[in-house]
Amino acid sequence: MALKLKKFDRLVIAGDSITDVGRAQPVGEGLFNSLGNGYPALVDAFLCSSCPELMIRVTNMGTSGNTSRDLLARWEKDVLQLNPAFIVLMIGVNDVWRQFDSPQMTDWHVLPEEYEANLRKMLDSGIAAVGKEHFILMTPYYMEPNRNDPMRSTMDKYGEICHKLAGEYQISLVDTQAEFDRLFQSIHPNRIAWDRVHPNLPGHLLLAKALLREIGLDLSR
Amino acid sequence: MALKLKKFDRLVIAGDSITDVGRAQPVGEGLFNSLGNGYPALVDAFLCSSCPELMIRVTNMGTSGNTSRDLLARWEKDVLQLNPAFIVLMIGVNDVWRQFDSPQMTDWHVLPEEYEANLRKMLDSGIAAVGKEHFILMTPYYMEPNRNDPMRSTMDKYGEICHKLAGEYQISLVDTQAEFDRLFQSIHPNRIAWDRVHPNLPGHLLLAKALLREIGLDLSR
Amino acid sequence: MALKLKKFDRLVIAGDSITDVGRAQPVGEGLFNSLGNGYPALVDAFLCSSCPELMIRVTNMGTSGNTSRDLLARWEKDVLQLNPAFIVLMIGVNDVWRQFDSPQMTDWHVLPEEYEANLRKMLDSGIAAVGKEHFILMTPYYMEPNRNDPMRSTMDKYGEICHKLAGEYQISLVDTQAEFDRLFQSIHPNRIAWDRVHPNLPGHLLLAKALLREIGLDLSR
Amino acid sequence: MALKLKKFDRLVIAGDSITDVGRAQPVGEGLFNSLGNGYPALVDAFLCSSCPELMIRVTNMGTSGNTSRDLLARWEKDVLQLNPAFIVLMIGVNDVWRQFDSPQMTDWHVLPEEYEANLRKMLDSGIAAVGKEHFILMTPYYMEPNRNDPMRSTMDKYGEICHKLAGEYQISLVDTQAEFDRLFQSIHPNRIAWDRVHPNLPGHLLLAKALLREIGLDLSR
Amino acid sequence: MALKLKKFDRLVIAGDSITDVGRAQPVGEGLFNSLGNGYPALVDAFLCSSCPELMIRVTNMGTSGNTSRDLLARWEKDVLQLNPAFIVLMIGVNDVWRQFDSPQMTDWHVLPEEYEANLRKMLDSGIAAVGKEHFILMTPYYMEPNRNDPMRSTMDKYGEICHKLAGEYQISLVDTQAEFDRLFQSIHPNRIAWDRVHPNLPGHLLLAKALLREIGLDLSR
Amino acid sequence: MALKLKKFDRLVIAGDSITDVGRAQPVGEGLFNSLGNGYPALVDAFLCSSCPELMIRVTNMGTSGNTSRDLLARWEKDVLQLNPAFIVLMIGVNDVWRQFDSPQMTDWHVLPEEYEANLRKMLDSGIAAVGKEHFILMTPYYMEPNRNDPMRSTMDKYGEICHKLAGEYQISLVDTQAEFDRLFQSIHPNRIAWDRVHPNLPGHLLLAKALLREIGLDLSR
Amino acid sequence: MALKLKKFDRLVIAGDSITDVGRAQPVGEGLFNSLGNGYPALVDAFLCSSCPELMIRVTNMGTSGNTSRDLLARWEKDVLQLNPAFIVLMIGVNDVWRQFDSPQMTDWHVLPEEYEANLRKMLDSGIAAVGKEHFILMTPYYMEPNRNDPMRSTMDKYGEICHKLAGEYQISLVDTQAEFDRLFQSIHPNRIAWDRVHPNLPGHLLLAKALLREIGLDLSR
Amino acid sequence: MALKLKKFDRLVIAGDSITDVGRAQPVGEGLFNSLGNGYPALVDAFLCSSCPELMIRVTNMGTSGNTSRDLLARWEKDVLQLNPAFIVLMIGVNDVWRQFDSPQMTDWHVLPEEYEANLRKMLDSGIAAVGKEHFILMTPYYMEPNRNDPMRSTMDKYGEICHKLAGEYQISLVDTQAEFDRLFQSIHPNRIAWDRVHPNLPGHLLLAKALLREIGLDLSR
Repeated sequence: MALKLKKFDRLVIAGDSITDVGRAQPVGEGLFNSLGNGYPALVDAFLCSSCPELMIRVTNMGTSGNTSRDLLARWEKDVLQLNPAFIVLMIGVNDVWRQFDSPQMTDWHVLPEEYEANLRKMLDSGIAAVGKEHFILMTPYYMEPNRNDPMRSTMDKYGEICHKLAGEYQISLVDTQAEFDRLFQSIHPNRIAWDRVHPNLPGHLLLAKALLREIGLDLSR
Repeated sequence: MALKLKKFDRLVIAGDSITDVGRAQPVGEGLFNSLGNGYPALVDAFLCSSCPELMIRVTNMGTSGNTSRDLLARWEKDVLQLNPAFIVLMIGVNDVWRQFDSPQMTDWHVLPEEYEANLRKMLDSGIAAVGKEHFILMTPYYMEPNRNDPMRSTMDKYGEICHKLAGEYQISLVDTQAEFDRLFQSIHPNRIAWDRVHPNLPGHLLLAKALLREIGLDLSR
Repeated sequence: MALKLKKFDRLVIAGDSITDVGRAQPVGEGLFNSLGNGYPALVDAFLCSSCPELMIRVTNMGTSGNTSRDLLARWEKDVLQLNPAFIVLMIGVNDVWRQFDSPQMTDWHVLPEEYEANLRKMLDSGIAAVGKEHFILMTPYYMEPNRNDPMRSTMDKYGEICHKLAGEYQISLVDTQAEFDRLFQSIHPNRIAWDRVHPNLPGHLLLAKALLREIGLDLSR
Repeated sequence: MALKLKKFDRLVIAGDSITDVGRAQPVGEGLFNSLGNGYPALVDAFLCSSCPELMIRVTNMGTSGNTSRDLLARWEKDVLQLNPAFIVLMIGVNDVWRQFDSPQMTDWHVLPEEYEANLRKMLDSGIAAVGKEHFILMTPYYMEPNRNDPMRSTMDKYGEICHKLAGEYQISLVDTQAEFDRLFQSIHPNRIAWDRVHPNLPGHLLLAKALLREIGLDLSR
Repeated sequence: MALKLKKFDRLVIAGDSITDVGRAQPVGEGLFNSLGNGYPALVDAFLCSSCPELMIRVTNMGTSGNTSRDLLARWEKDVLQLNPAFIVLMIGVNDVWRQFDSPQMTDWHVLPEEYEANLRKMLDSGIAAVGKEHFILMTPYYMEPNRNDPMRSTMDKYGEICHKLAGEYQISLVDTQAEFDRLFQSIHPNRIAWDRVHPNLPGHLLLAKALLREIGLDLSR
Repeated sequence: MALKLKKFDRLVIAGDSITDVGRAQPVGEGLFNSLGNGYPALVDAFLCSSCPELMIRVTNMGTSGNTSRDLLARWEKDVLQLNPAFIVLMIGVNDVWRQFDSPQMTDWHVLPEEYEANLRKMLDSGIAAVGKEHFILMTPYYMEPNRNDPMRSTMDKYGEICHKLAGEYQISLVDTQAEFDRLFQSIHPNRIAWDRVHPNLPGHLLLAKALLREIGLDLSR
Repeated sequence: MALKLKKFDRLVIAGDSITDVGRAQPVGEGLFNSLGNGYPALVDAFLCSSCPELMIRVTNMGTSGNTSRDLLARWEKDVLQLNPAFIVLMIGVNDVWRQFDSPQMTDWHVLPEEYEANLRKMLDSGIAAVGKEHFILMTPYYMEPNRNDPMRSTMDKYGEICHKLAGEYQISLVDTQAEFDRLFQSIHPNRIAWDRVHPNLPGHLLLAKALLREIGLDLSR
Repeated sequence: MALKLKKFDRLVIAGDSITDVGRAQPVGEGLFNSLGNGYPALVDAFLCSSCPELMIRVTNMGTSGNTSRDLLARWEKDVLQLNPAFIVLMIGVNDVWRQFDSPQMTDWHVLPEEYEANLRKMLDSGIAAVGKEHFILMTPYYMEPNRNDPMRSTMDKYGEICHKLAGEYQISLVDTQAEFDRLFQSIHPNRIAWDRVHPNLPGHLLLAKALLREIGLDLSR
């Protein structure tokens, strides 16, 4: 697959704490670790070291704790107004997590119907801005191999919504859950994340590689 | 059940980070939060508020990161030399955990055979010191309801060793795993601990109540 | 007594530093120790571990240093607007304390007449919102067994106002002073609080248990 | 009364946290607040501002948490080896306090018989070093006006031991309890110390003035 | 001289860093060292320990770095609006100091003519508020015994303005320069302040005693 | 090329600050970012995410500021005694750098002859321990494209010594200087490191990829 | 050359991080290291120690990270409104640096045409305010001896613009690049600055001496 | 005068806090501000920027608080064992200062006789090591223009001892007191040091220039 980025393209990655990982405020880009310590910084590192001549600008717009409701509220200002050439979107973990770690806080829960509606609004305006070739959706995930675990099975429903929408909108999808599931055939989730959500460096590298494959980068360079 | 403690008895609780939770060094007792913020402090609070006239002395000797191998190495100095009247022992989570979060660090792993041998040494000398009526063993646990999860099923083996030894030595046992399992019929483990090991206050209260029932305290007082 | 709380009820506890103990701002609820380290967190822990299926939402709205005058000023915003199903109110210690530790700061003092008026306003609107079955008043206290101590005898007058109002409004009352007095038949107040106001964990547990009995929880579960 | 200090005399004050108040280690004297923030610094300030020509050297050897047992253990090194010309000794609060805030820690308690024996050893060697004219004993105190309070009545017994020994050894005594009792005829102890032990600046000034009167300083200069 | 303060009087002390010494913002009074660590806290300590029944309220309104120009700008808000019963004013050190440590910053300098005008405005409104019996002016000072030193001789001019105005307005004056000069007949200024401006505790005690004598307190009590 | 690592192999990486980057002391391995934030952590992340079933143990033994002289002094303890299955060695930058940033500190300089001798000693004992198939030498580098720059041309001499020894000992070599030189055909060194020595994440990824190619890992997995 | 400064003149130095070096905000002048730790503080130190009678006021208005675009935006407020008698301007390093360390951030780049336009605006208004005799332009520099280095050769173009404008406006110019080039005939840039931009003290002294020569100070005094 | 230093010479400066100013421990030389922020760093900066080809190694061995007694105790280890080619010695301020700021601490005082004896021992061994051409003595000073000030007149006696010894040993002397006296004909000591001992940057530059003139450096280069 050919690289979907051209010289000076700006790649904006929107998400939650899995994306954020200490990025600079208000915009996560530029000097001094402002990309944070997660997969967006690795994406920048691969693009810079593999195709330095393209000078791709990677911008990390993840915000810790965000649900799709929170991200939608800042979508216009934090994504569209940055004039991206390429958008990556991974959201949904907190939509589900709060249902399980804070069952008593019902107004914090984002249920599947609202999740789908939130995604649709971001997809509509995002694809209108960059074109469907330049929008990648990443599923949320839960690093729990047991598909019968209630939080995992709920997360899978949110993942299915991503699959459905990716098909409908004809955009690329990164199935992060499948990536982690493959890994957990050999090792236990505790090797990657004690809380089964926030990965260590091997987990972030897995996400970065999966995303870059969809972007069309030859990882062996 | 009658209270197994009498006036001025010293109750020493030995364990790992689940017990430690910031206790004072070198001995976790006395003024100024020196009991840490976990179940040992709650045990002290129940005993003090329910039977203040007994002036039970609770001593927290948990140390973060300890396996049964580490605890055995300090058992003489950290437990027996304190002249306890009552001993509580909960160890084993790290024996198992390191096998899953650090599979490559094989010399950190404590396998079942060694675990049982370590426990036996502590039981032998501990019971010799306080008598079998005053020694309580608490099983390790993993807040994972899925019994087929590899770390859970391994943890269950360590729990079974505790059951076997409690029977053999005729001592009381607190089945912490069963306590948490009951809880997870209603709520998901994430409500108690993101990493399924270190509980929040509801989880520590659950441990304290289960332990105090075996000690014979009437919780409703 | 049957539990006075039903599924998803929100329990708001309003008070001063005895309630606050480091709760999150602006609202003390949710993840990461946001309930503080006092009796409200213990109330949450009992409810979660004893009846996890009810998913009671406990909200700590204590603010350090508050007198009844200060609490009244934020009552609408900090209690009523949160749509509580159940309200717990403990206030008055600072109304009295400032008269004794800062006798020269007369404008800081809240005298009995004002105290009663402030309480009435909070009771009127609070009971209108949740019903008298779901409002509990806790007396202020001073951990001084000598009833002739001037600060203790003044505090007793404020406690009597609470008793009078609880009878008049037909609501439940927790007599915290009586709870501590019982304790001090066996131990000296210094075992619970050097300053005779801010309890350690045994003292907070005493408050939590007394409050939960009025809420109708079976503590032995 | 004539001043009992002559030019270049070294005045060593030994005690517990009431004396310490952040003094420099290992010896509390010299520049940069090394005298701490308690009554010893005020004693130095009075002597320096009232009789600057005498160049009295004040040395603070208080150590927080000390009982008479702890102070005796360091008496030789921390007092006698400093070659004092004048010794002030105030100890005993912690001997009593631990009996009330930590009733379960019986090995921390220093009972009256041991207290008297400890004092005698310090008096014997101290008076041998400086002469009975240059040794002042200050009683311990508890800022509790109610003489029936158990901790106050216990403290009074320790104070009586001081009175008895002062008479027997023919040395000056500062009755700190009487000083505070006089104050509490007008104000409540909370104006001076929330914990009834560690005074604020007015309380430290009271101690300094009472001590300086026994040293023979004209406070009105 | 009889004490010029009666029960519940509020004494406001206005000044610069010599007065401030870490007082609370916005108003330096109340609990927790909010009076700072300078002579105002000592004034409070003397009044509280000598005449506790009067419950004098001492308020420290010193602000570090202030010249008379700066103090005048906040005089209405920081002094008059506090409804004082008694006002103490010490200002002028920075008016002079900046002329010597920052000769190039000419707009920071407050020359004698402006100093006198600033003082007059504060005296006019202050005396109108409290009466001339309840207003004390303290001269600025420089702890330099050599009257030919340029900064000392300049400071003396500012002190003379204070003398002139005190006579004209018929108010009490504390000649702080004379107080320090007396001290430096026996010791060198370095014993009190390395920078000859900010005193250590003996120096603050000297200021407090001199002020309290003018207020009419019997220091020997 | 086949992977040169088999299950449970321990890979020890020795070097200077380029390797260290905040690794744990005394041994850089295990949980909680103990591998630091440089290329060793990326090597671990690639191995874990690409071949999780092998459970390779990566140990970072870089120490900031080390020259080859410093590394040789700790080689026995810090590398050989860890029983590595595979050794990676990158040293020499500080041997050269100190000659240029601290020309006056001549005893800090390690000249080429000593550098070669130091390397030979480490190669001799290291290869004896793991075999020449499992020892990789990485050249030092200076991110300066101008080969006439004195520090670059000196660094090239040290790189040539590495080339010569790699041929002589028949071990793999990573020519880090060539890797960076390729990059600087498109971008300026300032994109990777302001000081031309300590790389940002793209630079560390470049090093990790180059090293992993020599180890035989398929990077596209 | 005669000194171009007369008594009480205010010298304002405007620039980027090379000038800033921790100066006080909002205006870098006055007591307590408010001039920062770079060449402006050395300029003040030379003027004060060599001609103390002139009382020159040095004001540091450098701001880290500034390009000429940023400086122009604050020129009116940060330079002209301070009523300088003499202006020194050094800007441009970041105009160039961002092109090389952040090639992908094209909107951060200030190209030569804009640089010249920005300088002209500052020169026009600055010379109108102080006269051409009292305005000194300092070139930007890059401590890279190799004139073929892309960043050095770009920086030289910006330096040429400074030369051209200095000639056109008939103002003095400090050729900082030439100063450093002379130094690098003997030592490597790493002796002065690892990042070739921010000098250590020897580098700042070089800048200060070069600037003071243009101001007409006899450095040997 | 010709420069008294040749290529690679090591210049060791020994002294007290005026020399120390935050230098690195145990040896003040090398990278990262290890020379501190006083005149030794300025000496290094002048030598490096004026004659970079000589690569003079400046080593700061000042220690805060030292008297000549303290310096003598570490002279062998901290000066002679460093193999200096040139020694600079400035000591004595604290010998005098303690007599005035701590008159009561008589064992801290170093009187003239001991001062001279201490200096002689350091001169004997120092000159034996480097030769009289390469040893410079700097007088102590006190920034007090009034020669009748007791601390100034005492300091002058110590300065006279330096003059006497410099003549006797035929070594160069820097009369720092005369340097400051010249400055104070135009400005007041407060412009240089509030405490009249620790200079700001202008004062340190004055010391550095005076020292470098004796070393033979042409300051105008």
